[in-house]
Amino acid sequence: MLVEDCLACNLLAGKLKAPGGVIYKDNYWIVEHSLSPALLRGYLIIKLKRHCEHLAELTPEEAIALGTVIQKTCFALSRVINPAKIHVSSWGEQVKHIHFHVIPRTSDLPVGSLKLLIYLQIKKLLNKLGLSKWVSEEEAAEVAAQLRQELENEYS
Amino acid sequence: MLVEDCLACNLLAGKLKAPGGVIYKDNYWIVEHSLSPALLRGYLIIKLKRHCEHLAELTPEEAIALGTVIQKTCFALSRVINPAKIHVSSWGEQVKHIHFHVIPRTSDLPVGSLKLLIYLQIKKLLNKLGLSKWVSEEEAAEVAAQLRQELENEYS
Repeated sequence: MLVEDCLACNLLAGKLKAPGGVIYKDNYWIVEHSLSPALLRGYLIIKLKRHCEHLAELTPEEAIALGTVIQKTCFALSRVINPAKIHVSSWGEQVKHIHFHVIPRTSDLPVGSLKLLIYLQIKKLLNKLGLSKWVSEEEAAEVAAQLRQELENEYS
Repeated sequence: MLVEDCLACNLLAGKLKAPGGVIYKDNYWIVEHSLSPALLRGYLIIKLKRHCEHLAELTPEEAIALGTVIQKTCFALSRVINPAKIHVSSWGEQVKHIHFHVIPRTSDLPVGSLKLLIYLQIKKLLNKLGLSKWVSEEEAAEVAAQLRQELENEYS
């Protein structure tokens, strides 16, 4: 069910830990910060709990649960981060295991899919050079706790 | 329920027509080629049937249906286009009405989210200059018919 050289599977198996820990999970999906360290507060990844590489191959149950986890993740981010827009994308080119990037595009970030991706690549490079900062483990943990709280208040 | 100056609402109201017509619909979502003309064979848009601008605000019923329409759309594309990967993205920056871009990344296209978006922007420019071709209405109609057929065979 899990694959050894898959980043997502290694997270699911507990060999790696996303900053701030698990934010939400159901029977099929799990939501955590992106790895590691995180590039933006609330940049989350929705991952399928089993190794599967194509959205076409989701089971009916996994597919039904997907929309709900997207909606709930966006709800929590809208409460905690209050972004202008939330980008939700599945590319699966580097890490093939099905996952969605959930990126809160706050009003200080460039508007538009291409501009935002270019900005994130540049930010990643600046972070590596020490000219810009990753999200600290403490900050990610604080955001994760707030997101969990919003989900608990609204949906439990 | 529909908004006058919204491209998605104008499509839903029949004021505009996507090339090849409706490929799939349920009570909450509709799948058509991207407008118009289409940039790639099988570049599809999954649109919410009502005007709503934030994924956080999907109703439980809309959210439950979303994952299934994503899975079915990807299934049909995998059969008809056979892409290496299918990118599924909701940005909502230009057209704010909730929609997902479903882009079949065939093996002749650049690998990676950023490279693919840059390629599509360049292709759009080349098309406008007459140096590259849009998908013709006939070609979009043919692909749409094949996609409808795959969905009918599999799910009806």
